[in-house]
Amino acid sequence: MIIDIHGHYTTAPKALETWRNRQIAGINTPSEVPKVSELQIGDDELRESIESNQLRLMRERGLDLTIFSPRASFMAHHIGDFQVSSTWAAICNELCFRVSQLFPDHFIPAAMLPQSPGVDVATCIPELVKCVEQYGNVAINLNPDPSGGHWTSPPLSERYWYPVYEKMVEYDIPAMIHVSTSCNACFHTTGAHYLNADTTAFMQCLTSDLFRDFPTLRFVIPHGGGAVPYHWGRFRGLAQELKKPLLKDHLLNNVFFDTCVYHQPGIDLLTRVIPVDNILFASEMIGAVRGIDPETGNYFDDTRRYIESAQIDTDERYKIYEGNARRVYPRLDAALKMKGL
Amino acid sequence: MIIDIHGHYTTAPKALETWRNRQIAGINTPSEVPKVSELQIGDDELRESIESNQLRLMRERGLDLTIFSPRASFMAHHIGDFQVSSTWAAICNELCFRVSQLFPDHFIPAAMLPQSPGVDVATCIPELVKCVEQYGNVAINLNPDPSGGHWTSPPLSERYWYPVYEKMVEYDIPAMIHVSTSCNACFHTTGAHYLNADTTAFMQCLTSDLFRDFPTLRFVIPHGGGAVPYHWGRFRGLAQELKKPLLKDHLLNNVFFDTCVYHQPGIDLLTRVIPVDNILFASEMIGAVRGIDPETGNYFDDTRRYIESAQIDTDERYKIYEGNARRVYPRLDAALKMKGL
Repeated sequence: MIIDIHGHYTTAPKALETWRNRQIAGINTPSEVPKVSELQIGDDELRESIESNQLRLMRERGLDLTIFSPRASFMAHHIGDFQVSSTWAAICNELCFRVSQLFPDHFIPAAMLPQSPGVDVATCIPELVKCVEQYGNVAINLNPDPSGGHWTSPPLSERYWYPVYEKMVEYDIPAMIHVSTSCNACFHTTGAHYLNADTTAFMQCLTSDLFRDFPTLRFVIPHGGGAVPYHWGRFRGLAQELKKPLLKDHLLNNVFFDTCVYHQPGIDLLTRVIPVDNILFASEMIGAVRGIDPETGNYFDDTRRYIESAQIDTDERYKIYEGNARRVYPRLDAALKMKGL
Repeated sequence: MIIDIHGHYTTAPKALETWRNRQIAGINTPSEVPKVSELQIGDDELRESIESNQLRLMRERGLDLTIFSPRASFMAHHIGDFQVSSTWAAICNELCFRVSQLFPDHFIPAAMLPQSPGVDVATCIPELVKCVEQYGNVAINLNPDPSGGHWTSPPLSERYWYPVYEKMVEYDIPAMIHVSTSCNACFHTTGAHYLNADTTAFMQCLTSDLFRDFPTLRFVIPHGGGAVPYHWGRFRGLAQELKKPLLKDHLLNNVFFDTCVYHQPGIDLLTRVIPVDNILFASEMIGAVRGIDPETGNYFDDTRRYIESAQIDTDERYKIYEGNARRVYPRLDAALKMKGL
């Protein structure tokens, strides 16, 4: 089977965005804050938003299952305080859970956290617990920069983050390290901030000994690892300068890269440079780049085509499509096994 | 001939750093600020620092000429005010000029600017003029984030930067877009901040119409363009979403990438994806990654080996080594022609 480990609910019914805009407007006028109960989205609307979008494309592309989380750019942890983020995360996570209930063969949820800049990250634990224990989430998205492009939080190697890591280890779930919208004019959200965050997170791991403290902690770096595979020699060399072990020993038991790289040469580099055990199939479809590549006539984000054309053998392709996902996301594997898959 | 367009004076005599440390200490105690005249570095010291380092490696690697600028990580524009930066830039630029006078066949200077966060960038013009008119500089290094990792300046497409662009166009000199040390704990200087800045600068150009205002303005994006070539499909797709022209028309008359990518697969991707007319040979030698790659037995930063092994023909190699540099740096070409080269 083919598992896409990086899908967001980018096509949620418009009512979600309308409610969010009212919530944001209410930050300065508390009397206008909408109630959660004012957001009413029926199952038919959810079904329609998925069937005509993600599920349609999954069928066209031959993808079986997507790990599905709230829209990354809408997390916007920099907006409001913890209470705002908390209410918003609960709503978004519930919607992804409902999608997974409506399409149990095709979607399994991953949670966003109610992060808020300057707030103790331990405040995210109750939402995380609910999402894993009640909603069957198999992973979380962790935002290394809840400020939205000002990078005011400590690096991922700092103890600030440890409460989340402890819970991740307890539940044996990975985190995708994924920022949200940039509110810094220097950084375009999907063209700079996302890729920068991927590179930054990897380097924070490289310079630290985080995985000595948490040997089973697992991070998925999205968007093909930002700049990392292209500069793999630079990173190997920097690790050597810093007297760290070889990257394969220092990081590659804990750090994985997805295949959200939207052209063949990029995927060819990724599969040439990064060990196949560290590559997870993903498309982030109906995301940053929704158009058709005039050079190929195919969707930029139809990453399966690139994997099919990559110089890898059947076993390697199996690992990228399914095997690695089952290993990195044990709760996904368990859920599949429960279904006899 | 082989021209390395990206070299910094990373091996300057220790006295330079000592003087700088005194200057920094003097920011809070003005009476302790050292005089410029207290920095005494003789020609023999300069000669020795170059002959035993850059020039030795250039000879070993068969490189003829380096475009040589002050050490990037030492620019540290975030330290002190404009006066501090101004004095420091003048000292560093003078040293690179002296190196170019001592080794006129092997080094030609490029200037750092006395940028300072929040200060009108037009204040940099007098140093730029001096470096071009009196020191024979053929380019400048422009720091898109003089705050050192806090990204408080406007994007490169904003009018804030236009005074420098106007002078660049007048002199027909390119700018290498190069940040300095990160003072943001999230960003490792050479492992994250440099690469992020490259990606960020490219995207600032992509989202804007800067080169419509300045059709002859030229930017060199170092470190192989950060994450850009690896994600070339993503950037082509984002340009399409933004209704911009094809990247080759929108940016590639004005934006160029160097070859500071420290492994063969990275250079292979760069030469496969980016038109050869936009690739300039560079090594940034004795820089971020000074060690020997245990996988090859060669220096990581010996980028000539990767270009020699790349699947390109003799004409393409000529462009990368020499032809493009002469075109992008017309004052370099003129200086070479004056010597009959």
